[in-house]
Amino acid sequence: MQNRESFIVKLAVDAWFGQIKRVDNLLDELSDEQLLQEIAPGKNSGVYLVGHLAAIHDAMLPLLSLGQKMRPELEEIFINNPDKSPIKKPATSLLRQYWKDANTTLEKHFIKMTTDEWLQKHTAVSEEDFIKQPHRNKLNVLISRTVHVANHYGQMLLLKKGGAQE
Amino acid sequence: MQNRESFIVKLAVDAWFGQIKRVDNLLDELSDEQLLQEIAPGKNSGVYLVGHLAAIHDAMLPLLSLGQKMRPELEEIFINNPDKSPIKKPATSLLRQYWKDANTTLEKHFIKMTTDEWLQKHTAVSEEDFIKQPHRNKLNVLISRTVHVANHYGQMLLLKKGGAQE
Repeated sequence: MQNRESFIVKLAVDAWFGQIKRVDNLLDELSDEQLLQEIAPGKNSGVYLVGHLAAIHDAMLPLLSLGQKMRPELEEIFINNPDKSPIKKPATSLLRQYWKDANTTLEKHFIKMTTDEWLQKHTAVSEEDFIKQPHRNKLNVLISRTVHVANHYGQMLLLKKGGAQE
Repeated sequence: MQNRESFIVKLAVDAWFGQIKRVDNLLDELSDEQLLQEIAPGKNSGVYLVGHLAAIHDAMLPLLSLGQKMRPELEEIFINNPDKSPIKKPATSLLRQYWKDANTTLEKHFIKMTTDEWLQKHTAVSEEDFIKQPHRNKLNVLISRTVHVANHYGQMLLLKKGGAQE
């Protein structure tokens, strides 16, 4: 029953969109100055996390066979290196834009993807391994990236003034 | 194709188990003393977050029609009231246990649940609303609670010594 399958897939896809929306709303609330702060003493800055999320989401394009990275330079700065490295970071306004660009491009693909496509292998797993481990598919990448963005959303929330139980 | 449906559902259920495992591992690493610290200045303590997660997961039992809450007293302390309220909290060792108890009980049910059961309505939505909004089902509760625990995992990670990009 194709309809019920795609209904189940849509729950996961909507959870992704929900998390993107939450981060978007939080970034609208936080000033560039707030984003420059560390989320906790000695930990990552908000700006680093925005760049990190933009880099990870940009990298989902090739991982899901949806195209090339739009900002390949982000990987070195925001995935391979920590916040406190001497590498110069792009301006906060650019990072906000890269975050939006990656998600907008992903969304264009996601809204058209069929269940068959979601269950295809992602590009970081070989054909041989995929036969034995069919759960290493595109939908699973989406779910694990949803969890990943939720991890960092919880952290960025700490940049808001006042208590945060959310 | 029942098999493919349950395969897709299993991706979401496994994501839940993955998050529980990560928090379990983190709690094994963190001492009671570390848990007493605030995740960031003026924000929730680790202990509060453990109690909060235990309370939310315990409340999933009635929400998913799986039974009654085992620790109904947690709601008042860890959901209705913030960390800095004067209400006395249970000992950290007990909260660690309540966290485990809630998840162990949920797991016993989750491993047996069929796709049909996952797509049933949860108890916080009426029959009438569920007809119009069939996505308000048990699987969606699971997905949103997976995101919720990921939010707080990201925060509790800050209690570890050293940087944390993860």
